[in-house]
Amino acid sequence: MLNITLPDGKTLQVEDGTTTLDVASGIGPRLAKDAVAGRFTINGHAETIDLDRALPGDCALQILTKNDESKESLNVLRHSAAHVMAEAVCKVFPAAKLVYGPPVEDGFYYDVDLAESITPDAFERIEEEMGRIIAADRPFCRYEMPRGEAMPKLAEEGNEYKIDNAERADGDALSFYVTGEKRGEDFEDLCRGPHVPSTGWIGAFKVRQISAAYYRGDANEKSLQRVYGTAFFKKKALNQYLQRLEEAKKRDHRVLGRQLGLYTTSDMVGSGMILWMPKGALVRSLLENFLKAEMIKLGYEPVYTPHIAKAELFRCSGHYPHYKDGMFPPLEMDGEEYLLRPMNCPFHIQIYKAQPRSYRDLPVRLAEFGTVYRYEQSGEIAGMVRVRGFTQDDAHLFCTPEQLQAEIQKTVKLTLLVLKTLDFEDYSLRLGLNDPASDKYIGEQEKWDASSDSLRQALVALGLEFTEEIGEAAFYGPKIDFMVKDCIGREWQLGTVQVDYSLPERFGLTYVGSDNREHRPIMIHRAPFGSMERFVGILIEHFAGAFPLWLAPVQVAVLTISEKSVEYARQVHENLLEAGLRSELNDSDDRIGPKKHQMRARKVPYIVVVGEQEASEKTINVNNAEGKTLGSFPIESFVQGCLEEILTKGHSERGATGASPVAAQPV
Amino acid sequence: MLNITLPDGKTLQVEDGTTTLDVASGIGPRLAKDAVAGRFTINGHAETIDLDRALPGDCALQILTKNDESKESLNVLRHSAAHVMAEAVCKVFPAAKLVYGPPVEDGFYYDVDLAESITPDAFERIEEEMGRIIAADRPFCRYEMPRGEAMPKLAEEGNEYKIDNAERADGDALSFYVTGEKRGEDFEDLCRGPHVPSTGWIGAFKVRQISAAYYRGDANEKSLQRVYGTAFFKKKALNQYLQRLEEAKKRDHRVLGRQLGLYTTSDMVGSGMILWMPKGALVRSLLENFLKAEMIKLGYEPVYTPHIAKAELFRCSGHYPHYKDGMFPPLEMDGEEYLLRPMNCPFHIQIYKAQPRSYRDLPVRLAEFGTVYRYEQSGEIAGMVRVRGFTQDDAHLFCTPEQLQAEIQKTVKLTLLVLKTLDFEDYSLRLGLNDPASDKYIGEQEKWDASSDSLRQALVALGLEFTEEIGEAAFYGPKIDFMVKDCIGREWQLGTVQVDYSLPERFGLTYVGSDNREHRPIMIHRAPFGSMERFVGILIEHFAGAFPLWLAPVQVAVLTISEKSVEYARQVHENLLEAGLRSELNDSDDRIGPKKHQMRARKVPYIVVVGEQEASEKTINVNNAEGKTLGSFPIESFVQGCLEEILTKGHSERGATGASPVAAQPV
Repeated sequence: MLNITLPDGKTLQVEDGTTTLDVASGIGPRLAKDAVAGRFTINGHAETIDLDRALPGDCALQILTKNDESKESLNVLRHSAAHVMAEAVCKVFPAAKLVYGPPVEDGFYYDVDLAESITPDAFERIEEEMGRIIAADRPFCRYEMPRGEAMPKLAEEGNEYKIDNAERADGDALSFYVTGEKRGEDFEDLCRGPHVPSTGWIGAFKVRQISAAYYRGDANEKSLQRVYGTAFFKKKALNQYLQRLEEAKKRDHRVLGRQLGLYTTSDMVGSGMILWMPKGALVRSLLENFLKAEMIKLGYEPVYTPHIAKAELFRCSGHYPHYKDGMFPPLEMDGEEYLLRPMNCPFHIQIYKAQPRSYRDLPVRLAEFGTVYRYEQSGEIAGMVRVRGFTQDDAHLFCTPEQLQAEIQKTVKLTLLVLKTLDFEDYSLRLGLNDPASDKYIGEQEKWDASSDSLRQALVALGLEFTEEIGEAAFYGPKIDFMVKDCIGREWQLGTVQVDYSLPERFGLTYVGSDNREHRPIMIHRAPFGSMERFVGILIEHFAGAFPLWLAPVQVAVLTISEKSVEYARQVHENLLEAGLRSELNDSDDRIGPKKHQMRARKVPYIVVVGEQEASEKTINVNNAEGKTLGSFPIESFVQGCLEEILTKGHSERGATGASPVAAQPV
Repeated sequence: MLNITLPDGKTLQVEDGTTTLDVASGIGPRLAKDAVAGRFTINGHAETIDLDRALPGDCALQILTKNDESKESLNVLRHSAAHVMAEAVCKVFPAAKLVYGPPVEDGFYYDVDLAESITPDAFERIEEEMGRIIAADRPFCRYEMPRGEAMPKLAEEGNEYKIDNAERADGDALSFYVTGEKRGEDFEDLCRGPHVPSTGWIGAFKVRQISAAYYRGDANEKSLQRVYGTAFFKKKALNQYLQRLEEAKKRDHRVLGRQLGLYTTSDMVGSGMILWMPKGALVRSLLENFLKAEMIKLGYEPVYTPHIAKAELFRCSGHYPHYKDGMFPPLEMDGEEYLLRPMNCPFHIQIYKAQPRSYRDLPVRLAEFGTVYRYEQSGEIAGMVRVRGFTQDDAHLFCTPEQLQAEIQKTVKLTLLVLKTLDFEDYSLRLGLNDPASDKYIGEQEKWDASSDSLRQALVALGLEFTEEIGEAAFYGPKIDFMVKDCIGREWQLGTVQVDYSLPERFGLTYVGSDNREHRPIMIHRAPFGSMERFVGILIEHFAGAFPLWLAPVQVAVLTISEKSVEYARQVHENLLEAGLRSELNDSDDRIGPKKHQMRARKVPYIVVVGEQEASEKTINVNNAEGKTLGSFPIESFVQGCLEEILTKGHSERGATGASPVAAQPV
């Protein structure tokens, strides 16, 4: 007999061999009809299995259904859709050799090895084939085979990728899924499962994209073609998703970044390396200056340090080997290994060590907009948000145990100020803890507990909600991460606050206490933006490129209606420049419509239109970024409004709603 | 017969075999007595030879004398002194194996291979031995030996360094110099010469320093001991030199850099890598902000770019191979070579290329405080002035041929403004040209001539004096270098302005002209500071650490005389902070004398002393950095004076002389 605990806390006693479908049927026909798979948890370990497989023992059971649209249900469906797409691809491209096809966020892919290029032209044909397979509602049938039998079978089939996958798989038996009932005839794939009961469950799908990928993500391996698709239980969900994608495209920082001249990349420079173009660099430097001013108030001291050091430095810090996979490979100079830095901390530590420190000098708060280099798989690199070189708004605080709590709270508050100033309301806090069972972390558990407690305590004191996640700490200490979503809902870590007892120990840092004895300081690592690249990338999506006035690369555009107002327009433009506003003049004889349209496309917050009437009245006609007229203003009151809006770091989108001082004073 | 042209233009006809001494004697006994060596020039090639060697043919001849104290005369003397020191070292350390001993700027050295460490304690003994050799006034006697005879002789003597040197020497015969007349008995050395006639010519000398060096500067070779000395013809010149050194030590940026907490280095980070400590970072950022503000007025646009790129980028630019020796070694990632950048230009070129450009957009002026990494031999590295990682205040201007002249002049003027603002008056300008005979340069000579002309033309138009030097160009174009001397008189390149037709060609840069056709822009590379590290290093020496008020890390120190004035002092301090001045308060109960002394040592421009009298009168007593009392002032007028001094970037040293507004308003 098995004891099955349901999500509502009820426990069922069932016979050995009972399946999820049996349990569902026992609860009701409706549930049995909608059930997709079972998700059992034994000893904290959760796993999803086919509906018709026997439950493995006493467990908690969650019945995944096609109505819950949970990530787990969708993963099962999409895995099945990947099999269907694979079969379809093989039909359209008989020479295609299948490699590997998992579900991923928002869909699934299948890697194929094929000399011929699959282009988007082929998507329709693939979708047609998939449609046929789904219409036939073929069941997914699992069978297992002892390894000794399965390997010769695979060898005979001759797909070296599947053989390699099988060799890497655990266990004495290998499992296969047949899409249909005719084993040996219908499509089948080496697969751990689980799958939906039959192809008919795939209510809506789309082949979306093709890209290059290396086998096992290794650039030394063969280059493959990765076909992306997505699938949902219901047509409506797919439509909503596609609509959201369409909407997101308009906010996509990669698209807007190019369109607005914010950043570029270059094949010659390399993947994941951001070149900030003038307008993007301006936004970044305004953000940096804002934070720098706040930090100066809080007693931070800026420093500058190099981007490379001897491997010795990183051996001492523990980055080598604990962070080795995230680092660029070494170079050798004068018989010595040098490494590009993945973090700034060891350098700031050198500055701390450069002079004797007394408790009277603490906290020492060393800040640097420090560029770091981290290795990312080329397939992982994305726009500005996942890159190989980025600049952290980094600082390291060295303090006494007595100072720790107050300093943590101040750094958390600073990060909250940053998010608030940039209008981020939808963020979450995650307390990342070490996993005592893992060897990824350095230092004693006792110290880990102390530092985790200090972070937890700060969050509680500040009345902030947060989740705790084991295994999400930095290798040297626990951290609070500030998570924000991008335009398609993916979560990204922006700001971070970390407590560290380990590096002060490893580098032998000291200060002389009031007792005239040497003590060990505690370090706080913190970065409110996180990475300037990622933050600006997310910021572009957040504002859909329409930066608030204080950040807008061009704040005001002055446009002439005809040549009769050119002189007055130039004077207006000069007045704006003199007031310190970033004004751009277009006094060409193009028509006013296209001129306005161009400035709207460039997301200029205020578009000032000047015609004969304005010239004679000595006023200006102001439109917002959406082209809506805000009214006519004397230049002085417009300038005054702008300067106030900049000073308060307001967002000009609100201008139209009356929250902006500009809108408050029409003539 | 030979035709000998003298510096005054006179030509002598002399017999074959005539020596410099013969020529000198012919002119007069005084000259013959003072003559050190001859320096002849044939076909633009100059060489110095012993006084008693036959002149090699028709030539221009300069007779070096002990009175001219020229670099050439001193080099001959110091080379001889190196031999004398080598002999003395061997006497004191019989196990020493001599390696190589050339004259260098300000003196000479001799590298020796010796297990025992030579310490400064031994200098006196070495000097004693040298004194004996000099007192004996032994002649330097040259003899030559055919290679076939000389190599077995060296082999027998068993000094592997000399054998190696001999193997690397050109020519069929090798020359040796005996210090004395007894060949085979007196000290002798494999040497090309020339030397002074006898040891007695060494009027004054000093053994100064010991350091480590690698054989042939190669870190893979054996580590040697390098003994440094200096020598002069006259005692007075040595004394002046030592005095200047003593004076220089007080200005030495390496000493002041540590003392004032401006920068540090770390063995773990690596040689030639500067870590800017908070006070140094502040000075740097103030300089950067000053320049940035000037650049914004001139239409520059800041950008940010990565520090590393694929080797491909540098192959395209020509850095690889034309600048290869100056670069850090490559690292390999994803099967691709990557290189740290030695220059920023290729990155700014990528930004130029990122969008189509019209003649209406030009000049495009992309600016970046860009950190670059260049390989320097570890023996060459010195303080902040010769380093491996440094930040250039770089910019690249892309312009049309019509714009070129005006843009060059503006960049030269900006560099002059920088030097003037920082009170540099003793600088010189050098126009570095390519050497058409060398393969170090890329591009056609025609383009080199055009760009050299444009630089020359700009300097002439601005009425500036300059020298021209062939072989001093960048590999891609000619340049104007702004040369400034450090505290011991060594010349350093700071600012630079360069014209470049080559890189636009190599990267295929274009703009669409008013004729609607594609044209090639011309690039200007320019950096008014040059390198922030080097500039600040030189600046520290220039001001002997006493920065002008606008750059001083701490601008005002407020000191209490006794605890009775603590409250008032705090209020003064707060007032100063509120006014935006960088004030530091010392209200400890230490005595005022030591408190003032400490602030003077820290070179704080204004030291404000507050006692009971000041508290009751609501004034402050102001002292300058030298401790001189400037008088009593109401706080407001002091603040006003400081703010004006900062605004005008005045130098507070002048405060005492009345040029500062502070001194103008005592109560």
